[in-house]
Amino acid sequence: MTTTLANQQFRLAARPVGLPKDSDWQRTSEPVRELADGEILVKVLYLSLDPAMRGWMNEGKSYIPPVGIGEVMRAGGIGRVVASKSPKFAVGDFVSGGTGVQEYWIGAADDKTAAFYKVDPKAAPLPKYLNALGMPGMTAYFGLLEVGQPKAGETVVVSGAAGAVGQTVGQVAKQRGCRVVGIAGGREKCDFVVNELGFDACIDYKTGSVKDGLKQHCPKGVDVYFDNVGGDILDAVLTRINRKARIVICGAISQYNNTTPVKGPANYLSLLVNRARMEGIVVFDWADRYHEGAAQMAQWMKEGNFKTREDIVDGLENFPQTLLMLFEGRNFGKLILKVADENS
Amino acid sequence: MTTTLANQQFRLAARPVGLPKDSDWQRTSEPVRELADGEILVKVLYLSLDPAMRGWMNEGKSYIPPVGIGEVMRAGGIGRVVASKSPKFAVGDFVSGGTGVQEYWIGAADDKTAAFYKVDPKAAPLPKYLNALGMPGMTAYFGLLEVGQPKAGETVVVSGAAGAVGQTVGQVAKQRGCRVVGIAGGREKCDFVVNELGFDACIDYKTGSVKDGLKQHCPKGVDVYFDNVGGDILDAVLTRINRKARIVICGAISQYNNTTPVKGPANYLSLLVNRARMEGIVVFDWADRYHEGAAQMAQWMKEGNFKTREDIVDGLENFPQTLLMLFEGRNFGKLILKVADENS
Repeated sequence: MTTTLANQQFRLAARPVGLPKDSDWQRTSEPVRELADGEILVKVLYLSLDPAMRGWMNEGKSYIPPVGIGEVMRAGGIGRVVASKSPKFAVGDFVSGGTGVQEYWIGAADDKTAAFYKVDPKAAPLPKYLNALGMPGMTAYFGLLEVGQPKAGETVVVSGAAGAVGQTVGQVAKQRGCRVVGIAGGREKCDFVVNELGFDACIDYKTGSVKDGLKQHCPKGVDVYFDNVGGDILDAVLTRINRKARIVICGAISQYNNTTPVKGPANYLSLLVNRARMEGIVVFDWADRYHEGAAQMAQWMKEGNFKTREDIVDGLENFPQTLLMLFEGRNFGKLILKVADENS
Repeated sequence: MTTTLANQQFRLAARPVGLPKDSDWQRTSEPVRELADGEILVKVLYLSLDPAMRGWMNEGKSYIPPVGIGEVMRAGGIGRVVASKSPKFAVGDFVSGGTGVQEYWIGAADDKTAAFYKVDPKAAPLPKYLNALGMPGMTAYFGLLEVGQPKAGETVVVSGAAGAVGQTVGQVAKQRGCRVVGIAGGREKCDFVVNELGFDACIDYKTGSVKDGLKQHCPKGVDVYFDNVGGDILDAVLTRINRKARIVICGAISQYNNTTPVKGPANYLSLLVNRARMEGIVVFDWADRYHEGAAQMAQWMKEGNFKTREDIVDGLENFPQTLLMLFEGRNFGKLILKVADENS
């Protein structure tokens, strides 16, 4: 390491109103300092761009504290250890953890917030560790199985079907013997989840009525709905749920950039009529079982029964515009920002 | 029985828009016919007036079919058997069942819709069989215990606290060792649930902010919320729920007479942040366990640890206006219409 190494960063400059604007970000560059004992220097290779990031930019109580004004934007990432004064990681190790939106992460190897752990580039391509083998995969796997509790023969519907979480939800449900119906925006995404991932059907919310699509593709009603979007789609599904249905509230991307209040589900009394439930999930609650989910999905991948797609955009400098792709549905697969070459 | 016996009835004349109007009802009188074998004639004494009746007047799929136009309005009631050609009931028996809004019920003793069963006027005053020992009591008892799953030391909040269901929810929760906070309209109702029923506190939504009241009276947050009202109060409680909270959706009286769409809970993403759930209940699901709930509550009553209050209005002819009391919060306790004297 030389003292001339510079670390480009994106910091939160202001709390966005609606969609994040360029002026909500501050680009900074700071020299990479010397390592103290127990510390490591991680060169960031890939960053995970997630809908949840929008929530972290808001003030107020949530499941984790908001990113402070002036702080490096929080993000999960994959990096390579390029310097180490810790026995925990060696130079050359690939790690996954909370790198933040920057080129380098520096700090204690056992930092609890970053929570780095080693990943094996030979077992799976590195971007997979930000997708099915990372947070989105764990969210989908445990959220569906533990809270959705799908049983063979039941109908599972998932919105954001071509997104990082949706892809995995649908494939895990297929593994459980369910009929799986996706909801996604555009023919291309719908064809992908049906033809490539093996969903039974997919409703294109951009070209037709979701309600009609549900009637057509869920002739026996909906037993489990895994909701990533909220808004009108959640309301449409509520009209088609079965007795004792389970709705997993994973996210509500349609509502994250509202400048008006969130649209609550007007049809929530369908929960009463159908003795159904709606339950929220946060992936961290299954942290002690991630290894179990990752092992299962890696196994399915090896057997060729589980595929995931990433949408990788190049260049840290493109972070602000790339993040917006999520909220406009322009990403096709798990959205990842490539910060540096794997072997650079 | 003489052939001159007339049966006054209220039939549904039109599906109401908003609050039911006089013109939504048709008063009819028909002669009481001779009994066939296996039939009974029940003289109606008390009718249960419930918020759910408003839902039965709407067209469309629900947990039971709507009341048809021209049909006698559905209602639960207590009556006395005044003629019997069935071995199942003897003249003089008091029964509870689906009598409808009329002076006499006639039909098969084992009619599945009416579902009559004997009640004992010596064990409890007859109106109690439409309150804690009837549907509202069963709704409260099983909905709270089975879906709310309160644990000792937890905080239970119930809206419509002075109403039929709310009274019982709070007292069952106290029996389970919970802190119980009611929400009700007006000082008198609040004083009643605290001083007479033993709730720990009660928030008067008519004179103050429910949110502030929850802050003050639920210093450790809300673990179980039993919702009878929906609307703004549900939204307020959602801001104060704890991790893994359970919201029991029993009703939404604030929304039943809307002429605009139902107000969905704008704060429903609090379920996500708090990994909480919202689940609907319909009392019929516990029909095979009613005896268990009734026995337990009768026992508590006998021990002096369980009280209920009824608000009894006299005269079948007052049915339309009396029903409106529910939606304006003018009833104080379980609303009952007295149709005839117990020994008449």
